[in-house]
Amino acid sequence: MTDTTLTAAPTGSYYGRHIFFCLNDRTNGEDSCAHHNAQAGFDRCKALVKQAGLSGPGQVRVNKAGCLDRCAAGPVAVVYPEAVWYSFVDESDIDEIVESHLKNGQVVERLVTPAHLGR
Amino acid sequence: MTDTTLTAAPTGSYYGRHIFFCLNDRTNGEDSCAHHNAQAGFDRCKALVKQAGLSGPGQVRVNKAGCLDRCAAGPVAVVYPEAVWYSFVDESDIDEIVESHLKNGQVVERLVTPAHLGR
Repeated sequence: MTDTTLTAAPTGSYYGRHIFFCLNDRTNGEDSCAHHNAQAGFDRCKALVKQAGLSGPGQVRVNKAGCLDRCAAGPVAVVYPEAVWYSFVDESDIDEIVESHLKNGQVVERLVTPAHLGR
Repeated sequence: MTDTTLTAAPTGSYYGRHIFFCLNDRTNGEDSCAHHNAQAGFDRCKALVKQAGLSGPGQVRVNKAGCLDRCAAGPVAVVYPEAVWYSFVDESDIDEIVESHLKNGQVVERLVTPAHLGR
């Protein structure tokens, strides 16, 4: 991606931005996002978005999701409609995604999931 | 929406189309998508997409999601990056969404969630 400033969501989109966190928790011994603080990332994002008054129709929805199937890059979250994927590590990463992308439409390039990483 | 034929997914989108099914199951007595065959819709969509060889990166991902917060229109699913929302009832609705939208990029207008319906 070369242009890191995104345009507004398309007209008619129920949520301006909809971010989905993979909260998949494998119990078969395989690794999964839930083993890497995915829930904490979701909780923090949800709280920050609410606190900023950004929640709701026409604005932002922070959503739980099952396996997004990019386990090699986990924990991951994806922002639609832009289809920007993030791999995050800690709370400060979440803070930056909220402040930069969800509030201001500016992609956090350093956290973008490398394109080749899938399952 | 006036033009019902959608263009291809944007370049760089990991999945060409990513459909999320609300599988939220409220246990507090309130209604939720899980009480209206949401799981069956998800299962059928997943099976049909796999059977059609459409699953995977560059193609289609069928995903579980938590509450999408449009309960009044449930059961619902949303297709990104187009941000098209569907309210479905039975298996034939799912079949039509897969065949028309997920395979051929043609919105199934009769199933599109009315814009005013939220939580």
